[in-house]
Amino acid sequence: MEKESIALWFQGLQDSICHDLEQADGKARFQEDQWQRKGGGGGKTRVIQNGNLLAKGGVNFSAVFGEASEQMLKMMKIETDKPIDFFATGVSIVLHPINPMMPIIHKNIRYFEMTNGMWWFGGGIDLTPHYIDKADAKWFHQQLKAVCDAHHSLFYTEYKKWADDYFFLKHRNETRGVGGIFFDYLNDKKGYSKEQIFDFVKSVGLSFAPIYTHFMEKNANLPYGESELAWQGVRRGRYVEFNLVWDRGTKFGLETDGRTESILMSLPPEANWLYSYEPTEGSKEAETQSLLKKEIDWLNIKID
Amino acid sequence: MEKESIALWFQGLQDSICHDLEQADGKARFQEDQWQRKGGGGGKTRVIQNGNLLAKGGVNFSAVFGEASEQMLKMMKIETDKPIDFFATGVSIVLHPINPMMPIIHKNIRYFEMTNGMWWFGGGIDLTPHYIDKADAKWFHQQLKAVCDAHHSLFYTEYKKWADDYFFLKHRNETRGVGGIFFDYLNDKKGYSKEQIFDFVKSVGLSFAPIYTHFMEKNANLPYGESELAWQGVRRGRYVEFNLVWDRGTKFGLETDGRTESILMSLPPEANWLYSYEPTEGSKEAETQSLLKKEIDWLNIKID
Repeated sequence: MEKESIALWFQGLQDSICHDLEQADGKARFQEDQWQRKGGGGGKTRVIQNGNLLAKGGVNFSAVFGEASEQMLKMMKIETDKPIDFFATGVSIVLHPINPMMPIIHKNIRYFEMTNGMWWFGGGIDLTPHYIDKADAKWFHQQLKAVCDAHHSLFYTEYKKWADDYFFLKHRNETRGVGGIFFDYLNDKKGYSKEQIFDFVKSVGLSFAPIYTHFMEKNANLPYGESELAWQGVRRGRYVEFNLVWDRGTKFGLETDGRTESILMSLPPEANWLYSYEPTEGSKEAETQSLLKKEIDWLNIKID
Repeated sequence: MEKESIALWFQGLQDSICHDLEQADGKARFQEDQWQRKGGGGGKTRVIQNGNLLAKGGVNFSAVFGEASEQMLKMMKIETDKPIDFFATGVSIVLHPINPMMPIIHKNIRYFEMTNGMWWFGGGIDLTPHYIDKADAKWFHQQLKAVCDAHHSLFYTEYKKWADDYFFLKHRNETRGVGGIFFDYLNDKKGYSKEQIFDFVKSVGLSFAPIYTHFMEKNANLPYGESELAWQGVRRGRYVEFNLVWDRGTKFGLETDGRTESILMSLPPEANWLYSYEPTEGSKEAETQSLLKKEIDWLNIKID
């Protein structure tokens, strides 16, 4: 399993996802910026704005390599007295819809290797509905469970928990949304071959377009007004807080001189902050707020 | 110089600044939330929203104390084998005006002491015009130089440079605004007495209201339209990026379980992110962008 073939597959995935999203949106087209990294490699950032359904979103591919900087090694807690080269490739996606009744979604898959012999895959997919619909959340987790179960019976349980812990705003004591799956440092230490792990990562990658286009089709015509837009602004503010304060990928990118505009494509077109805002008791906003918790068993949640 | 008398003076400053700002705004009133910290102490958070001139702003006072947590000691790089108590008090302010032709402003003064004998003052004041007016920036720095010069001939030069370095968005390679002054860990190691340092800190605190109400009066009626509001949204986005990614005070607060709503009162009511936005060449937005640099000698800048 050569790193080049992983990067090539990732690049193909970017193409196919962009194609499916453009088709589902029906209006906007991705704008592509190709960029080069000084130390080696580069990427293709593709951003969609002002669509029929999508307000702003990015589907990024990158494959970068070169000598690992001191800062990079420090952030990865690797101690070494001789230079190490690294190679990193990945596809990352964030989509912000226009309609507040449609969820925000994020997906990332990545592969990393170093000339000291270390390698691993990582990734995840999580859903952030502005308004949590329990049936939608259940369906989302059912899809992820099916993806996981095809590879290992323990993956869903383990990676669902990891997502709960990862996509969490500690300073708000709330989850980003309804979670999903998250995994990192996945290598052959646990008895899976590199091929098996890559197959799993591919399945996660391929699950994205059908999952999100399902919501694009299903929720596109749900009605909304001023109060739903105001709540969307608040929820988008929390999305900004998570990405800039807690997301390790964003922090790593910004601190190691990554391409800022590619990293921050994840931010919404607009976000709001109101001091000490609390949804009215009994409102649908309050219901969503009450569901921003870890350890909800979405597969078995009672649908009202 | 007892810590209580410093805290008391800070609290009085909060009152007087809120009074002056309400008078200059002419409409909105500060809403006060008193809060207690579990481990000891508390604060008064005062927020103003939807004024004649101010869109959103906070003037916070706090005086907190208790046993320093492991995390706190680690963040301050203090190694100790026995428990240490700390005491921290401060006033911090951020104001976001409605009119994009009026600048955003920030001020903070603080005092910290620990039962191991360490103590220091810190603080700063910096201006973030959505549109940089060179004469306004010059006037602002003249005020700060006068405040500094009354205490020490080297303060302005040293703390102006510190502000350039501190209020800097590394991932954008741009300053937050036109800078100001910033200082930290100011104690008697350099030959000033505690009284002399506190006097300087008081002067910085007292300079705030006259400086900002000057801009409120002078710039209140400058005309603006859609394009100025769009640029304000972008500049506010950068303000969010600085506060959530780089500001040490914000990070410290969020990571040590501070009161989230008091810390994040610094965020604007609304912010925007457009992918790869660049102001049109030759525009006034492009001129502002070109001035977001360190080491500009604002006192001697050529006014066109």
